[in-house]
Amino acid sequence: MTRMKGIEAFKPLIGAESVERIKSKAAMVDDMHVVHVNSTFYGGGVAELLSSLTILMNQLGVRTGWRVIQGSPDFFSITKKMHNALQGGGIRLTQLKKDIYERVVEKNAMRNHFQDHDLVMVHDPQPLPLIQHYRRRCPWVWRCHVDLSEPHEELWDYLKQFVSQYDATIVSTRGYTRDLDSPQLRFHPALDPFDSKNVEMGEKEITGRLEHYGIPTDRPLVVQISRFDKWKDPEGVVEAFKKAREEVDATLVLLGNIATDDPEGERVYQSLMDCREERIIILSKQDTSLVNALQRRAAVVVQKSIREGFGLTVTEAMWKGTAVVGGRAGGIPSQITDGENGFLVDSVDECAERIKQLIGDESLRQRLGEAAIETVRENFLLSRLAEQHLDLMGSFHSEFTLEGMSTCRVNGGD
Amino acid sequence: MTRMKGIEAFKPLIGAESVERIKSKAAMVDDMHVVHVNSTFYGGGVAELLSSLTILMNQLGVRTGWRVIQGSPDFFSITKKMHNALQGGGIRLTQLKKDIYERVVEKNAMRNHFQDHDLVMVHDPQPLPLIQHYRRRCPWVWRCHVDLSEPHEELWDYLKQFVSQYDATIVSTRGYTRDLDSPQLRFHPALDPFDSKNVEMGEKEITGRLEHYGIPTDRPLVVQISRFDKWKDPEGVVEAFKKAREEVDATLVLLGNIATDDPEGERVYQSLMDCREERIIILSKQDTSLVNALQRRAAVVVQKSIREGFGLTVTEAMWKGTAVVGGRAGGIPSQITDGENGFLVDSVDECAERIKQLIGDESLRQRLGEAAIETVRENFLLSRLAEQHLDLMGSFHSEFTLEGMSTCRVNGGD
Repeated sequence: MTRMKGIEAFKPLIGAESVERIKSKAAMVDDMHVVHVNSTFYGGGVAELLSSLTILMNQLGVRTGWRVIQGSPDFFSITKKMHNALQGGGIRLTQLKKDIYERVVEKNAMRNHFQDHDLVMVHDPQPLPLIQHYRRRCPWVWRCHVDLSEPHEELWDYLKQFVSQYDATIVSTRGYTRDLDSPQLRFHPALDPFDSKNVEMGEKEITGRLEHYGIPTDRPLVVQISRFDKWKDPEGVVEAFKKAREEVDATLVLLGNIATDDPEGERVYQSLMDCREERIIILSKQDTSLVNALQRRAAVVVQKSIREGFGLTVTEAMWKGTAVVGGRAGGIPSQITDGENGFLVDSVDECAERIKQLIGDESLRQRLGEAAIETVRENFLLSRLAEQHLDLMGSFHSEFTLEGMSTCRVNGGD
Repeated sequence: MTRMKGIEAFKPLIGAESVERIKSKAAMVDDMHVVHVNSTFYGGGVAELLSSLTILMNQLGVRTGWRVIQGSPDFFSITKKMHNALQGGGIRLTQLKKDIYERVVEKNAMRNHFQDHDLVMVHDPQPLPLIQHYRRRCPWVWRCHVDLSEPHEELWDYLKQFVSQYDATIVSTRGYTRDLDSPQLRFHPALDPFDSKNVEMGEKEITGRLEHYGIPTDRPLVVQISRFDKWKDPEGVVEAFKKAREEVDATLVLLGNIATDDPEGERVYQSLMDCREERIIILSKQDTSLVNALQRRAAVVVQKSIREGFGLTVTEAMWKGTAVVGGRAGGIPSQITDGENGFLVDSVDECAERIKQLIGDESLRQRLGEAAIETVRENFLLSRLAEQHLDLMGSFHSEFTLEGMSTCRVNGGD
């Protein structure tokens, strides 16, 4: 298990010097006890991130816990509506909804004792009201992974009463900051290069995985990996692919999954199934090795999102040296510099053009892919995220201040 | 929310004196910090119990946490096989299975820091190996909810290496003790009378719930509520009901649910669906209020199990003053004294006889039901279980000893 080697495993990726720097930062805060709180162990990028991050931090000698709150089906139905409304959707914010939301969190507060902790990091809206049930003895930080650029106004006014009690808020990209008095920081998400989704795979292993699912490997693959969600524009991808195929020969694979609590997902999937034809493959599977194999073997990975939190599937494909065509939305432009390490597109036509161009030009694919690897290595590896957490802890180490965090502070000075 | 009143809410049920005694026991250990660890927040009696118990203990002023371990699908498939094999089934115990099991638990050990705790209670086999990753500074207790009377031998030999590291083991009934050097205690499970499954319901509300699911209320109801599992013998219940119906008029309702990871459940359910006919209703629903309504309205609740951990559905029906016919298996005879507060049966014919007798004799039903309420009040309420936990903590308070726990000690002296 490479996973168990901890930060040392990153040496070949980020260099011995960076590893030593991270280790010494960890040593300076190894008397601190941190706890992360979110609402699920399973499904979704936040759980994946916390799974890897909490292990790495403990391997670095920093005691880092991970608590998950318990909720009723009612509660999760409400917090899902909140999630959508924070990203621009609608919600009928009744008193009953607020009561269920706050009561479930209150029960969780009764069972979670943070007295001996030195930093509490609360993720996303579900456990947000926890803070009001504690006499604060250490900094509390709200880590929001949601796109906050245009939240539902009434909902944000309601949630702000909780957010404003935190010592700081961390968002995923600069555009997601809000009108808050407390400091707001930006931590880009990151990927774990040693996770089964990202770990090296041999060509034979890749072929085996693809064959297992009946994916033909005789023509170049164009791939989009995303939840079946209209904001990921899978139908736009199909349209762009069909246009591109008028001039180049390729196979399209759309891989996704449907959350059981997402009726929209089922509809999107069904309407995609109607688009199937020769060389257009729609798959609903949960298999991280298949994701890995597709991202590695693809000639082009598309992520044609119209809205996007950060877009870690873009990061994942870039890390594998694959050319990516991404929609100019959410966190995607934070990763792709158009024409340097991938392409940004604003329309189906542009997307079709870039697919054609890339399939016809192997050296272009290679140039973009190599640059993409460097982009991820420098910016989006778990080691960088761990270091930001260590910096945050360091800044809180002796007092409640965020000095030294200026590099990622997005309101105020910079 | 009655739930929030804590132990005071039990006064009308167990008396002011008992409540005061429990409060004073809590006050003696309110400097202790306890943590419970299991493998899920949702589904199953253990999660229900921990949900209620941890809240009540905190309301009593005893800091009580609840941690859940994270596992992969592989891990849960293995621990499910272990669960079945502990209850007498088979398992092919390969090195690979052991490796996956132990590695997942190791990762969880990295994220869970119990340094500041005074008692760690680990539930069931999933998180069992946790103990080997800690320098023990406080007592660790393994709380096993599984029927251990005839475990798979090779599996038990393997698990014993972990079990024997614990300071004590707690089982659900006397017959479940094993060959261990450490003390073994017996804590019967208990029900939370203020949970939505058990809380008082008016007749109109009951009728409304039944009508919502199309359950006719014109004839006496015979009800079994159980997972669709061959050990619960639902087909035996149908057979007994058909025999009884030759002489009395009634409606049978089998209510259950199918765990998504249980292919057997699906088969049992399908074969039951083939038994449906007029006045035999098979329902697969998860609705605690429906359970409550059925247990209250039923003329007879049947729990014709062939194997049974404890049988909390028996307790639930007894608490509602309903006459219960239970199979003589597992923990059911710990609850039912034949002819006094319910009936015990060993066969389909006996079951049919008791159903007939009860449907024809309302005063018998009433006598048994009243006795049943008293049995539960005295033995199977959450307040009693909380008190046992307080006693356990008290015995550990100053030193690692189980003195004072003799009343529930099942190996050694009694």
